[in-house]
Amino acid sequence: MSAQIIDGKKIAQEVREQVSRDVMNLVSRGITPGLATILVGDDPGSQVYVRNKQKVAQELGIYSEHHALPAGSTQQEVTNKIEELNNNPKIHAILCQLPLPDGLDPWKVLETINPRKDVDGFHPVNLGKLLSCKKRSEIDELGIPVPCTPLGIMELIRHSGIEVSGKHAVVVGRSNIVGKPVALLLMSENATVTICHSRTKGLADIIREADIVVAAIGKPRYVQADWVKPGACVIDVGINRTDSGLVGDVDFENVKKVAGWLTPVPGGVGPMTIAMLMKSTVARAVPRRGL
Amino acid sequence: MSAQIIDGKKIAQEVREQVSRDVMNLVSRGITPGLATILVGDDPGSQVYVRNKQKVAQELGIYSEHHALPAGSTQQEVTNKIEELNNNPKIHAILCQLPLPDGLDPWKVLETINPRKDVDGFHPVNLGKLLSCKKRSEIDELGIPVPCTPLGIMELIRHSGIEVSGKHAVVVGRSNIVGKPVALLLMSENATVTICHSRTKGLADIIREADIVVAAIGKPRYVQADWVKPGACVIDVGINRTDSGLVGDVDFENVKKVAGWLTPVPGGVGPMTIAMLMKSTVARAVPRRGL
Repeated sequence: MSAQIIDGKKIAQEVREQVSRDVMNLVSRGITPGLATILVGDDPGSQVYVRNKQKVAQELGIYSEHHALPAGSTQQEVTNKIEELNNNPKIHAILCQLPLPDGLDPWKVLETINPRKDVDGFHPVNLGKLLSCKKRSEIDELGIPVPCTPLGIMELIRHSGIEVSGKHAVVVGRSNIVGKPVALLLMSENATVTICHSRTKGLADIIREADIVVAAIGKPRYVQADWVKPGACVIDVGINRTDSGLVGDVDFENVKKVAGWLTPVPGGVGPMTIAMLMKSTVARAVPRRGL
Repeated sequence: MSAQIIDGKKIAQEVREQVSRDVMNLVSRGITPGLATILVGDDPGSQVYVRNKQKVAQELGIYSEHHALPAGSTQQEVTNKIEELNNNPKIHAILCQLPLPDGLDPWKVLETINPRKDVDGFHPVNLGKLLSCKKRSEIDELGIPVPCTPLGIMELIRHSGIEVSGKHAVVVGRSNIVGKPVALLLMSENATVTICHSRTKGLADIIREADIVVAAIGKPRYVQADWVKPGACVIDVGINRTDSGLVGDVDFENVKKVAGWLTPVPGGVGPMTIAMLMKSTVARAVPRRGL
């Protein structure tokens, strides 16, 4: 038996095509979705990320602008830039690339973004709404912005035809950008969810109970084949640079002999994040009652 | 072997005594903590709850006022009342008793409360901050208001000398007032947390893995003795009215032969909720930088 490999590149491409159609639809109604990215400082990795986001936005017909602020910017200078974008009617979605340089408080910065334009879903009021919602349908209907990597993970699962309701999902990692929101999304689709982390004891035994595993650990090839229940769906969120190239948090070659579904690295979760960001940008631009 | 029964009444009394000292301390600095309760409609159960809260506040030297609004109040009338209390410098903590009558949107009402005066911690911005915090110490230092029943549960566990870090906690129930916030608090103290609910399959087997069980199910005597790992800590949040009186969600008489610690119903979690509400009221009144 060999796992079905979930093709994130292909699914991301399908998402982008749908987004492109949605953009055309909105443009025909006189609305061009607008995305503003902000990068404080000159971290090369962040520059690559932001450039990619800009590029994809443009390909899909989304209006986009980029604002580069110097590394020594004050909290007030960043706030002023965000306020300017909050008030700019051409901009529906604001993304402030993290991490911020030392000396800036990321939470204060994220709180400055108008929650309706908070495309990353990191504003506490949006995280609070995500926490409060009982059902996935409620999250979608209320148009609550949700962090893009978790959204992408759910899309990979859905696309693969994997039933979530009533399944046991084990999320390894409790970060604010992946672990906690993906746990909430899985629960909102009626999974029983276990969240594990660096202080978890008996991780292998816990993972062995899982129908769905989301690995966001940050350790190369950490999840072993004999930790995985035969037939389980394994989503690998890890991106680790090693001597043998980019690898995930899962021992791909061996786990694929056991799992039912498995995402590769690269080409799994990675491509989904930008695609979902574009989808969320367009969702911010859709006129919505009560938001 | 027989479980240690966790005496919620006694622990709540200790919390109240500490709160009373804190109030005296604040009063000597010229600050009298002020609690405002709002009840819309005339639900008899809610009236009892609110009256109890008022009574305890007064006993502890907290200034309190109650605002009863008629059942037919509009969203705007409720909002106006909350705005008035937001602007009242004598009031540090506002509690709007739930549930609200049909026709009022509880989330809209809760969002109207100034987050700094949100003593129940139900404002989405406070829930979002709770979700974001990595450590319990961060929650406490930032003074983030947290729902009172989960706070009380954590206090019962702490008081009983039960180590949380590295333990497997199973929370049964995913409500916004108990299940989800208590899961976050347990995780912020480094527990591995599983959240179960009505759609969970194999609940007994999952509970059997737990070092700490929090039962918030709403079914009388549902959790059976043979579901419980010997020596586990079992917190019973249930309050079920039956022909044989008030009973919890746990089969107390049998589970106490297996568990290491067990809360009774009544006299376990119940008394803690009001005590923690008083503690949170006082915390709202403490002058705090940046809040």
